[in-house]
Amino acid sequence: MTTDSWINESLYPDWGQRFLVKRELARVQSDFQDIVIFESFSHGRVMVLDGVIQITEADEFVYQEMLTHVPLLAHGAAENILIIGAGDGGVLRRVLQHKTVKRAVMVEIDGEVIRLSKEFLPGIAGDAWNDPRADVIVGDGIDYVKRAPDASFDAIIVDSTDPIGVGEVLFTDEFYQNCARILTPRGLIVNQCGVPAMQADELRDTSLRRRKFFPHVTAYVAAVPTYVGGFMTLGWAGKDASLTVLPIETIRARAAAEGILGTTQYWTPEIHVGAFHLPPYIGRHLPG
Amino acid sequence: MTTDSWINESLYPDWGQRFLVKRELARVQSDFQDIVIFESFSHGRVMVLDGVIQITEADEFVYQEMLTHVPLLAHGAAENILIIGAGDGGVLRRVLQHKTVKRAVMVEIDGEVIRLSKEFLPGIAGDAWNDPRADVIVGDGIDYVKRAPDASFDAIIVDSTDPIGVGEVLFTDEFYQNCARILTPRGLIVNQCGVPAMQADELRDTSLRRRKFFPHVTAYVAAVPTYVGGFMTLGWAGKDASLTVLPIETIRARAAAEGILGTTQYWTPEIHVGAFHLPPYIGRHLPG
Repeated sequence: MTTDSWINESLYPDWGQRFLVKRELARVQSDFQDIVIFESFSHGRVMVLDGVIQITEADEFVYQEMLTHVPLLAHGAAENILIIGAGDGGVLRRVLQHKTVKRAVMVEIDGEVIRLSKEFLPGIAGDAWNDPRADVIVGDGIDYVKRAPDASFDAIIVDSTDPIGVGEVLFTDEFYQNCARILTPRGLIVNQCGVPAMQADELRDTSLRRRKFFPHVTAYVAAVPTYVGGFMTLGWAGKDASLTVLPIETIRARAAAEGILGTTQYWTPEIHVGAFHLPPYIGRHLPG
Repeated sequence: MTTDSWINESLYPDWGQRFLVKRELARVQSDFQDIVIFESFSHGRVMVLDGVIQITEADEFVYQEMLTHVPLLAHGAAENILIIGAGDGGVLRRVLQHKTVKRAVMVEIDGEVIRLSKEFLPGIAGDAWNDPRADVIVGDGIDYVKRAPDASFDAIIVDSTDPIGVGEVLFTDEFYQNCARILTPRGLIVNQCGVPAMQADELRDTSLRRRKFFPHVTAYVAAVPTYVGGFMTLGWAGKDASLTVLPIETIRARAAAEGILGTTQYWTPEIHVGAFHLPPYIGRHLPG
């Protein structure tokens, strides 16, 4: 075995994870980023964008369940959902598990991510691509939210890369302002805010930015195995502060009604409620 | 910068973390293991035993707080504590924060770990070494629990390496049987049970083993940044099942009385209570 068999994540200059590669499946330079998909020995298939691990077959459920079920069950009656990014289709699949959902618009800027995910990671999205409620658009999410009508979505889920490279514009004032405009009165937006043990600035800066346009800004945590560094934070910005402090019985009843209860490997009503209780080392980065 | 500047963790053959090394501080082959301490760029100083990351200055608080405050506050009146392993002194320091504690016996097999920790990681233990309630023994924990009197400890905290190499004997029937014997009627033992996303067998096997000698066996979770792979589990075995389902108000009141509340960076009453709610992908490895 040569050292060439390892792929080192390049997210941080001085720390990171590495995978022993069984077989490289795809290596594509798209118009937006460098895409690599490989078969690992440890985590099934893995997708890497610009050197950063995005998804592995082994642990994708953690991130997808928490990014989707938490906002949708907290809302309770979300019918129209906008997904930005998430080209692998995993969020789309979880969104469509919810019976309340009538329409899920997914806007992914890089068609190559969708194409390669369909070919090499078909299990992530399952049949979601063919659901009549799904509207999959290859396009610019920034532009989409600029043109979307007022109050047209109940929830926006941003599954982006970190605020570097192609994902950077998804963390700007203009983007959040438009999101606030196109959300319904109880609407909310969630997005990944990095791993605070390594990227505390990301949580702090984007929370302050969301605060300009939303009355209620907070975050919740998920321990994603291959987003190494302890808890990752998922940012929450909404118009109705009551949604993040619902009693566990309400969440459980909604999950049962939706057919979500018992289908998950990470999310549970207890974890849902507990995830909003941040360790002090994370909580101190939120605006007071 | 040469590739020699990186240290790759060798815990798993096909996945792991790596650190860029600023300066190597110590490299010692003790009677028991290979010990390396280095200054990293990302996590302060780091101790490595037999190629496995044990502790970093940047995130040690997560593991130490959860391994110590959870059992001691759940017990509520723990006076005599036995610590096995934990040669860096971090658990000892947290144990001695508790006013209920009258005596903390720490048994570490490798005196070199203690010596090197005192020299290169002095902030981890702080003044704990000199506390009159501390009894630090360089010796064999297996032998210690064999000889200790019946019902002589209220809590046993095992801070060991994984059940390979020097730590292996701390996961045997004989060890747990003696622990059950030397614990008081409300006594309990906690120990690290690995990262289930990578080491599910460790949680399953040791839980089954503890089940032979304790009526109440469960586990709780902590997201330790440099024990990569999502949640690590801390195994719990005790004689009184009520200790792991206490109301949050009880935990908060005890923490306030003990002077723990507000001193922590990860532990909070909410996280304490939430940590016993396991994600399904972890919970299914516990004996039913």
